[in-house]
Amino acid sequence: MRLSQYYVPTLREDPAEADVISHKLLLRAGMIRKLTSGLYSFLPHGFRALNKICAIVRREMDAADCQEVLLPFVQPASLWQETGRWEVYGSELLRLKDRHQRDYCLGPTHEEVITDLVRDEIRSYRQLPVNLYQIQTKFRDEVRPRFGLMRCREFIMKDAYSFDRDENENEESYRTMQRAYERVFSGLGLSFCAVEADSGPIGGSQSHEFMVLAETGEDSLVLCSGCGYAANLEKAEVSPPQTGNAETNCPDPELIQTPGMHTVADVAAYLQIPHSRVLKTLLYKADDASVAALVPGDREINETKLANLLGASELELAHAEAVRSWSGAEVGFSGPLGLSVDRILADHTLLRESDWVCGANQDDAHYRHVRLDRDASVEQYADISTIREEDACPKCNSGLTLHKGIEVGHVFKLGTKYSSAMNATYLDAEGRERLMIMGSYGIGVTRLLAAAIEQNHDQDGCFFPPPIAPFEVELVHLAPQDETLAAAGETLRSAMEGIGADVLLDDRDERAGVKFKDADLLGSPMQVIVGKKGFEQGMVEVKDRKSGERTSLSLDRFSSEFSAWRNRVWHETWRLES
Amino acid sequence: MRLSQYYVPTLREDPAEADVISHKLLLRAGMIRKLTSGLYSFLPHGFRALNKICAIVRREMDAADCQEVLLPFVQPASLWQETGRWEVYGSELLRLKDRHQRDYCLGPTHEEVITDLVRDEIRSYRQLPVNLYQIQTKFRDEVRPRFGLMRCREFIMKDAYSFDRDENENEESYRTMQRAYERVFSGLGLSFCAVEADSGPIGGSQSHEFMVLAETGEDSLVLCSGCGYAANLEKAEVSPPQTGNAETNCPDPELIQTPGMHTVADVAAYLQIPHSRVLKTLLYKADDASVAALVPGDREINETKLANLLGASELELAHAEAVRSWSGAEVGFSGPLGLSVDRILADHTLLRESDWVCGANQDDAHYRHVRLDRDASVEQYADISTIREEDACPKCNSGLTLHKGIEVGHVFKLGTKYSSAMNATYLDAEGRERLMIMGSYGIGVTRLLAAAIEQNHDQDGCFFPPPIAPFEVELVHLAPQDETLAAAGETLRSAMEGIGADVLLDDRDERAGVKFKDADLLGSPMQVIVGKKGFEQGMVEVKDRKSGERTSLSLDRFSSEFSAWRNRVWHETWRLES
Repeated sequence: MRLSQYYVPTLREDPAEADVISHKLLLRAGMIRKLTSGLYSFLPHGFRALNKICAIVRREMDAADCQEVLLPFVQPASLWQETGRWEVYGSELLRLKDRHQRDYCLGPTHEEVITDLVRDEIRSYRQLPVNLYQIQTKFRDEVRPRFGLMRCREFIMKDAYSFDRDENENEESYRTMQRAYERVFSGLGLSFCAVEADSGPIGGSQSHEFMVLAETGEDSLVLCSGCGYAANLEKAEVSPPQTGNAETNCPDPELIQTPGMHTVADVAAYLQIPHSRVLKTLLYKADDASVAALVPGDREINETKLANLLGASELELAHAEAVRSWSGAEVGFSGPLGLSVDRILADHTLLRESDWVCGANQDDAHYRHVRLDRDASVEQYADISTIREEDACPKCNSGLTLHKGIEVGHVFKLGTKYSSAMNATYLDAEGRERLMIMGSYGIGVTRLLAAAIEQNHDQDGCFFPPPIAPFEVELVHLAPQDETLAAAGETLRSAMEGIGADVLLDDRDERAGVKFKDADLLGSPMQVIVGKKGFEQGMVEVKDRKSGERTSLSLDRFSSEFSAWRNRVWHETWRLES
Repeated sequence: MRLSQYYVPTLREDPAEADVISHKLLLRAGMIRKLTSGLYSFLPHGFRALNKICAIVRREMDAADCQEVLLPFVQPASLWQETGRWEVYGSELLRLKDRHQRDYCLGPTHEEVITDLVRDEIRSYRQLPVNLYQIQTKFRDEVRPRFGLMRCREFIMKDAYSFDRDENENEESYRTMQRAYERVFSGLGLSFCAVEADSGPIGGSQSHEFMVLAETGEDSLVLCSGCGYAANLEKAEVSPPQTGNAETNCPDPELIQTPGMHTVADVAAYLQIPHSRVLKTLLYKADDASVAALVPGDREINETKLANLLGASELELAHAEAVRSWSGAEVGFSGPLGLSVDRILADHTLLRESDWVCGANQDDAHYRHVRLDRDASVEQYADISTIREEDACPKCNSGLTLHKGIEVGHVFKLGTKYSSAMNATYLDAEGRERLMIMGSYGIGVTRLLAAAIEQNHDQDGCFFPPPIAPFEVELVHLAPQDETLAAAGETLRSAMEGIGADVLLDDRDERAGVKFKDADLLGSPMQVIVGKKGFEQGMVEVKDRKSGERTSLSLDRFSSEFSAWRNRVWHETWRLES
């Protein structure tokens, strides 16, 4: 491709609409354009990268014996009513009516459609297992679409669904997909990590997320250096304390005046005690119930764990008015003693101590010397706080490290959630009717493009891993008007294309500085620079965009030297296998 | 791929829901399944064919210097309001609201979105011409989705859009795309024909349709054996008569009683005159006007031509009540004398005669000896009837033939329809602001799959052209349980895959009859049959599915003999170039 013919409108300045680096660079490098909130057009430069990502995903899915299908984007409400998700999915499910006023939605995921397809066709255990996938446009009507391709409304996803005869077979399908995902992400040239995760609205018994590691990631994860335990912070278990209730002779509760002290920090400073001795009481509306959740002052509540524990589909912090009505005091002075709520739940790390400071349910007052088992009505102690870097690994007690990541894949064991709701059964070898065991497996294809940039960029632009670069090589031609040099450039281009590298030739009549800047911005991992001086010396300069390393190759032996250098960029710079 | 592992649920019987052959065979061969009215899922066997069609379309678009993009499926109403199509597009445009109650539609076509994209980026004549395409899901909320993939609501289309500096450059883009389309359809292995067409709601000054010839096609077209003129019946011009008003001494109109004679045939039989001497008067509501259209009794009115002549966006035959009110008589007795309508238009073939029989605008009565120029107020004579096989070619006067076809492609010269409505301008070399000249170019990708089957099938199933067959070869293995023969089968499979043929291996434990039936149904153009008897003789039988021809190949020289036979199937049976 000649840059002079290529539709790639680059921008010199960071666009005002973009907050994160991938969004900025996708716009600046002419890869995407915004149509309207959460909807993006892919221009040729972006589409090429997307297409290469899809090809790698497809290759690994096919190798894992998944078979490709294509399901409708527009889905009838009736299927979602069968599983009950028509009611519970919330406003991200965009509902619409056709000309006959029948209800439909735009598919955010396809569990219902695929289960409907399979239940009508599969009758016998001989037809199982089956694993079907598609690469397709999805729509989720995000309340605040943001960060470009990281959280948009219309996006491309690879979604696969497995149907197995029993739990063992399902376990095997799940592992096969985990391994396929590892090959996908390493094949794309990305640093990633698989973590235990919460299943969210998809449901099921077990799930893992695949995270591309990047400081700008929206997700937090914890990794254990000892046993390799890895989990999303939403999910990572916090161990209960090894020894319980240290102080048994706790005095009776004593009311103390704490005027204007709304926070744990205020109270701890005033009483000169560590934050960890102050009890934090958070009040929630969980579906229709009022709930108090207690955690130590030095820990954060984990709302995902709390919602799962409560079995609540909606959980939100109580408004000031509800706090006043349930506790009798303003926000900041709630405590478990004499509180009018339906349920009181406590984090199990609270079992380590028995002498607490907590809000007194009166304005400007706290209690000290509170013993939960004696003074409050705690319904249950459970794991409802978020893990911290200073906590021990829940599996092996080794040290933990926190990381940021971008969720690009998610695999779920669905069990019989959908097959029982939709009656997807088969006859086993003994002729008994049994429910199929399902799994579902997603990869965010468009988000992967953003994640690749979040992980690979510098102040000059992005540098794409060679397997997904729109062009693997940019041939920066400094004298395209010179006939001899133009012909030499064509020879080099043919040589590189001959060994399978796609080449973007900058044949524009522009200054060298502009060409170098654009080459860095457009992100080919390899640059080949053709200029008069080098040509006269029989040499051509090449640049490894990621490492910045420059080398000279001989014009005479260009094919073999380029091939060797290209291998080094793939294997050494990018640690890619092929 | 092994058939025992392949998710291809075939059906023995024709499904009741299917009327046309492609729909029946797509269902029977396990290629598609209906989700709900007009929405279909593609199973692996169907998806493979679709994927191959896309690859050929992509190859030819890229070769024609089109660049691939991907635009959102969900589109904001604001763009459609700019061009006015939000109001005029009708109910096929599925409108919806997002969570913030903003208006959107599901894209039935992308002129607005692409024009919006380009107007923001292209400023200078140096950036033109540009031609961008995408392969993408579209939605048209058809009032009666039918015939499976032939007329569904959600479908895949390749749509391209060109932006040129002037009419000449636009003419070149249009011709380039016409040639690319010819390469696409011949590359797919289909018999097709390009015809002049009406532009419909897309608009513009000129358009051509690409038709796959098939007796079951919904479209009719006319071909000239002399000059090669080809046109859709909606569009084909009917020449005006060479000589005018033969009878000049026409007597005065005479009222005759024609009780119960509502049709041309009734009246012609009663008066013993040819149908061609009876005047047919059709009454229409065209937007808000009442219109009478006159054609000779042996010709059909062409509503597309009439609507274009009137500039009407909605045209429908008047209801009985309106007929009564405008003519004073019931349907069947209307005529141009004393009719209360806004406009009277006449087909220009009526100029050949001057003595007509027509309805008298009284129940059970006609006039004879009507001379239109003397007795009626015809506003305009124009081409408003449909061409017939007995008409002469409008270009060269040679003979014509009528054919049926399936519209699979449509190219349009849009002129400045969209660029002027949306202000898509550029600065020319002299610094003057000018409107871009546009073209749009569609291919119905999913419909092509149905069209390929309508053109290539027999009572046993379909046979796909080799370039788009889900598998080019089916290896019908008659003894897969026999270890020696199983190994021999694997050797043959590797040999065929080694030269680029994809192979479906029927390794099921089934009777030979079942295997042959399924192979014919699944539609691979080549069958390789491995059995014990042939094996012992050192032979393997092959069958050309389309011609039915069977040959034996030597096991020893299988690779070269298969390769030669495969070339014959491609070039002789299918007349393919590569």
